[in-house]
Amino acid sequence: MTNDRITLDYGSGGQKTAELIDSLLLPAFDNPALSPLGDGAVVEGQPKLVFSTDSFVVSPWKFPGGDIGKLSVCGTVNDLCMAGGVPKYLSLSFIIEEGFLFSDLRRIISSIAEEAETAGITVVTGDTKVVEAGHGDGIYINTSGIGFHMTDLPGRTAIRPGDHILLSGSAGCHGAAVMAARTGMLNENSPLISDCMPLHRLSAASLGIGGIRIMRDPTRGGVATTLCEFADGMPFSIELNSSDIPIDPPVETVCGLLGLDPLYCACEGRMLIVCAPEKSEPILDALHKIPGGENASRIGTVTDEMPGKVLLRTSIGGRRILSRLSGIQLPRIC
Amino acid sequence: MTNDRITLDYGSGGQKTAELIDSLLLPAFDNPALSPLGDGAVVEGQPKLVFSTDSFVVSPWKFPGGDIGKLSVCGTVNDLCMAGGVPKYLSLSFIIEEGFLFSDLRRIISSIAEEAETAGITVVTGDTKVVEAGHGDGIYINTSGIGFHMTDLPGRTAIRPGDHILLSGSAGCHGAAVMAARTGMLNENSPLISDCMPLHRLSAASLGIGGIRIMRDPTRGGVATTLCEFADGMPFSIELNSSDIPIDPPVETVCGLLGLDPLYCACEGRMLIVCAPEKSEPILDALHKIPGGENASRIGTVTDEMPGKVLLRTSIGGRRILSRLSGIQLPRIC
Repeated sequence: MTNDRITLDYGSGGQKTAELIDSLLLPAFDNPALSPLGDGAVVEGQPKLVFSTDSFVVSPWKFPGGDIGKLSVCGTVNDLCMAGGVPKYLSLSFIIEEGFLFSDLRRIISSIAEEAETAGITVVTGDTKVVEAGHGDGIYINTSGIGFHMTDLPGRTAIRPGDHILLSGSAGCHGAAVMAARTGMLNENSPLISDCMPLHRLSAASLGIGGIRIMRDPTRGGVATTLCEFADGMPFSIELNSSDIPIDPPVETVCGLLGLDPLYCACEGRMLIVCAPEKSEPILDALHKIPGGENASRIGTVTDEMPGKVLLRTSIGGRRILSRLSGIQLPRIC
Repeated sequence: MTNDRITLDYGSGGQKTAELIDSLLLPAFDNPALSPLGDGAVVEGQPKLVFSTDSFVVSPWKFPGGDIGKLSVCGTVNDLCMAGGVPKYLSLSFIIEEGFLFSDLRRIISSIAEEAETAGITVVTGDTKVVEAGHGDGIYINTSGIGFHMTDLPGRTAIRPGDHILLSGSAGCHGAAVMAARTGMLNENSPLISDCMPLHRLSAASLGIGGIRIMRDPTRGGVATTLCEFADGMPFSIELNSSDIPIDPPVETVCGLLGLDPLYCACEGRMLIVCAPEKSEPILDALHKIPGGENASRIGTVTDEMPGKVLLRTSIGGRRILSRLSGIQLPRIC
């Protein structure tokens, strides 16, 4: 690796690929399941597993509060957690554009290693492809994850009028931070940072208390779209109180400037919970004690007023229907 | 899906993404683990699992004998098989360039469904991203796979002088077919087709006989590079007889015209086996009875003449050292 840029050679499967693995990847993720460098990793398992995949194409690849490496770990870890799993094993696959800087790749790999350690997940297998300049956009990453399945959640069919809607923190930080970074609105000291973080502690604490119908991390499409997916075609409605939804002031500002609605902006470190009403206080108490859950709030209630719909009660007393995101609001935010 | 091209909307996570899933993906892969459309799939497991991942960026995305869909199933299935696993669950993640034709996407999805059925693997989770025109190249696919781990193979450290080297079919068809397609050398009736196929039956039959030190599918870098990886730094050498290595005449022709060496051209439906000498005949007999294994051959022997090296005895009696592929011979053949 005498040159400072990725060339096509590094995706060849030959000598240069081996150099990349030996010098960058093995040192970052060294563990007994990865180090034989076989085509697949042999891992210990349990009778029931959770398996998830996500490709990440976020642009720009670094943004306040994270980068595509951190995001690609959190995204899959959070998917495993939301399915009731404890994250265990991660695969990692890069599609890198010819000309991408090694220094940037190192930084990304280091983010991945750090975040995987935090989340308690082990990278056990991987792959690297390089495409010609002009056929990618810097770097795309796929991660797939295996988790041990600990809790069966009943899902949205178990949601009943009277249930409470909880959100583990403020809405829309990730989407707003990426859009602000893309449009060059941010400087080093900007208070707006992505909420990107692994949810394993928050989800484990919530599951420990019980009474949960469904959990979901509101990524693409944000809080509004995820709740619309819960309610769609069901015999209940979801009613939100605008004033109860925590939204950070810098997110409000950026969304105002860019013409975005924070409720449709992606989160990458928040979870929505629908739970039995008697469990919402104990769950919120537990979340408040965990870093990243300090601002967890009850944001709404399940009703039977307008079955299938999500309603937002505004601060001036009006009420409007939130529809599912149609088409794209924020391209490539994850 | 009133328009015939993918737009950014289909990667938004909103309504259009749901349409894509409902109209194309669910019908193709319908199964109980996939249909809840959760962020992760809950699957039954065993104590030991094999987990593998690969991103596919082959160009052109269709080639004689297959397309990127078929390839993306075979590639991961074969990785699971080579690690001693029985393929069970597959994840599927698309990065699609804005403007890609729906008709082409349908064809690819249909290839995936067909090949998954053949290989006995179930697609249980997935993801779709769309990037702007000019930031991809039609379609990239990641598949990750979970297999049940049935056989512990001792690996290359167990290889001993006297062991035999087997190849399950002719060398280099896939790489030659893709390069020929890329350069426009082929017409509809060309006899050159990729060897792309799942190896689950061939590998299961071989493992059933036993005596195998290591198995590997010689993909990027081909037969020569894979054997160099076996021998590198070890106290044995590998000696091949050029005349024993099956190479199809159209592969010879295309490689001659393009200045390629078939031994460095990727296979996507072949496996290399190093086994105890007394097992090579029974393994070859078993392979010959399975479709795709008819031309399985013993192509060489493990010796102790030049430790760490791979030697090729040529048809005129000379001998040369095969070195590992340095840099890229064939970009984007998988």
